Amino acid sequence: MLSLRGMGGLIVQKYGGSSVANADLIKNVARRIAGVHESGTRVVGVVSAMGDTTDDLIALAKQVTADPNDREMALLWSTGEVVTAALTSMSLHAMGYEAVALTGFQAGIRTNALHTKAQIVDIDPVRIRRELERGAIPIVAGFQGWTDDLDITVLGRGASDTTAVALAVALRADRCEILKDVDGVFTADPRLVPQARKLDVISYEEMLELARAGSQVLHPRATELGEAYGVPIVVRSSFHEAPGTTIVRGDQMPMEGRRRVRAIAHDLDVGRITIGGVPDRPGIAYAVFHPLEEAALNVDVIVQNVSHDNVTDISFTVGRADLDKAIRLLRPVAQEMGAREVSSSDRLAKISVVGSGLAANPGYAAKMFGTLADAGINIVSITTSEIRITCLIDEAHVPPAARALHQSFQLDE
Amino acid sequence: MLSLRGMGGLIVQKYGGSSVANADLIKNVARRIAGVHESGTRVVGVVSAMGDTTDDLIALAKQVTADPNDREMALLWSTGEVVTAALTSMSLHAMGYEAVALTGFQAGIRTNALHTKAQIVDIDPVRIRRELERGAIPIVAGFQGWTDDLDITVLGRGASDTTAVALAVALRADRCEILKDVDGVFTADPRLVPQARKLDVISYEEMLELARAGSQVLHPRATELGEAYGVPIVVRSSFHEAPGTTIVRGDQMPMEGRRRVRAIAHDLDVGRITIGGVPDRPGIAYAVFHPLEEAALNVDVIVQNVSHDNVTDISFTVGRADLDKAIRLLRPVAQEMGAREVSSSDRLAKISVVGSGLAANPGYAAKMFGTLADAGINIVSITTSEIRITCLIDEAHVPPAARALHQSFQLDE
Repeated sequence: MLSLRGMGGLIVQKYGGSSVANADLIKNVARRIAGVHESGTRVVGVVSAMGDTTDDLIALAKQVTADPNDREMALLWSTGEVVTAALTSMSLHAMGYEAVALTGFQAGIRTNALHTKAQIVDIDPVRIRRELERGAIPIVAGFQGWTDDLDITVLGRGASDTTAVALAVALRADRCEILKDVDGVFTADPRLVPQARKLDVISYEEMLELARAGSQVLHPRATELGEAYGVPIVVRSSFHEAPGTTIVRGDQMPMEGRRRVRAIAHDLDVGRITIGGVPDRPGIAYAVFHPLEEAALNVDVIVQNVSHDNVTDISFTVGRADLDKAIRLLRPVAQEMGAREVSSSDRLAKISVVGSGLAANPGYAAKMFGTLADAGINIVSITTSEIRITCLIDEAHVPPAARALHQSFQLDE
Repeated sequence: MLSLRGMGGLIVQKYGGSSVANADLIKNVARRIAGVHESGTRVVGVVSAMGDTTDDLIALAKQVTADPNDREMALLWSTGEVVTAALTSMSLHAMGYEAVALTGFQAGIRTNALHTKAQIVDIDPVRIRRELERGAIPIVAGFQGWTDDLDITVLGRGASDTTAVALAVALRADRCEILKDVDGVFTADPRLVPQARKLDVISYEEMLELARAGSQVLHPRATELGEAYGVPIVVRSSFHEAPGTTIVRGDQMPMEGRRRVRAIAHDLDVGRITIGGVPDRPGIAYAVFHPLEEAALNVDVIVQNVSHDNVTDISFTVGRADLDKAIRLLRPVAQEMGAREVSSSDRLAKISVVGSGLAANPGYAAKMFGTLADAGINIVSITTSEIRITCLIDEAHVPPAARALHQSFQLDE
């Protein structure tokens, strides 16, 4: 259905960090891109930074200052993907193909000025089109863009997927392929649950919830973009030609795939903050979350307990890298509102079950809590969405929790 | 005379790779730049890639392909200086200063399209001026620019000096300081000649010849630019505050400093090519050197022997990195002209004596050849300029040659 090989057309292929981690892997990626080109389909490559490059750059910045400023951090980060793009294009040249490595700026990816967590405003792919028209293969450095001030920005960690889908939208590509070191979207992380199975199709909505629940397979912003503009996204292996998982609209899913638990997700990147003893009066939640929003910190699993004696606790989670910054922002706020204390933990994790229509059937929630109780796992907080139930648990309990839930929701079969 | 500290004014300071080789050294550079800013002098920093970064990037490219294409190579290379600029600016931020890291593109450095050996066409420093006006410290990634096609170019190895002097010209700076891991310009490389002494002043012309003769202290293009636009250049240590060597016009030199040997230079980056048995007819030299020029290979020490039986040998040197490429270009040319063979050596080196008016006094040449003969060192070829005498010798003979010449030209004193 979605295969356009040999039929002309245009696809965007994005290769993640593990797929370009060394020179041999980059040559492999170049061969795969060349294969698409040879088949008569025009192709635009999008590449991430090699392996641990981004972590290495962060470590380097931390050696210079504990709190690097965002504009310079974005510029520093952006170099990782430029290196991969240059090497991939070089490899295609060596194989006899015309190719051009393009930075986010050269690819026309304009963003707002949230330097390290920028959002794409629009894409003017004039250079990419020109290169495609002359038969060249554009290789775009993922994850980055530029502002009206000609400053370099990055889209936040893991956001090369977003670059790829946004380019597919701007170029009206037939599909966007996300090529990774995994074979597709699984019912659970196979490293934790040996019985996990690959899904052939999944809906944008389910994929989105999986990503929000911690699945690293596809970045949530990429999924949202794909859904909003109706770009088919395929997640597949960069190491072999198996078809992977196709992400489609819910009404294109097989009938029997609906209204059941589709997958288990977990997220270890959880820092929890609790503001204890908060006077319970109007405007408190705004006072807490407004400064975090201003600083562009992503907040999740917000829980406010029922108040006793007009005093309540507010707790929520942020990414662990944002934990110190969030606490620094909240200490003066908590003091001003007369709260008792600000405490935090970096030992918790999220475990989630995801599937269309879960919330409409309370039996799923009961089954999840019962399964965790049977496994002797304590639940710290619970949040739910229409198609997801998430429990905050001790991070050490994640592997047994994932295995128990995978079995009790019959995903092993 | 040239000190403008505390008097307003503007200086450009360039820090080389060894001066920014790790996080602590980058912090040291940031402190020095901040010191100039604090003194009331506006300052623009220009930085090289950290330590061996450029070599590491070349090695990475070579793992992907033996012969990387120039456009992608330039893009790859350019990332090294961007990393240093971002980290230096970050460090200034951490110290409480407004600073902005700028890529060559953001700094307005426009070049021609010789991707890896580009030349600056002009500089439109509008962003740098805007940042200076608001009291910020611009930190520019050296060595790079952009073309009219918005492609990233690099100016060739070691050319961050050129960026700095060109910026000093464009900004009408009071002077350009080149801060390095050496204290200034020496009478010889102190690693080879322990008796070598630091020079307080040297003329542009002498500096240029020293650079062309292999001195790594200041890039020849930077010196030429400084001379053409009359920008005073100071070479000094990035590790302490000693005044270094000032490069001035010849007529500003101390009287007694003229018309004598000023320094010994050596160059190990020598690859020699000999085209043997060339029919001696008009147009031969053009046929040999035109393809090398087209490929932007720098050629030096050209020697054509007197012909015997209408057959001659042509030999010349290129950088060792260009040796394979030059041979590849010349094989078909040599065949077509009916030459006997193309041979090469990468075991030779240049040793030179430099000083104003040397060529006007044949006694200097005789003394050089005699000194080398006394040391038992064979001379392969000789070239001279107005102020330089260069001998091609075996690379193993460079240290004793440098010491012998340093002594016989009384530079030890």
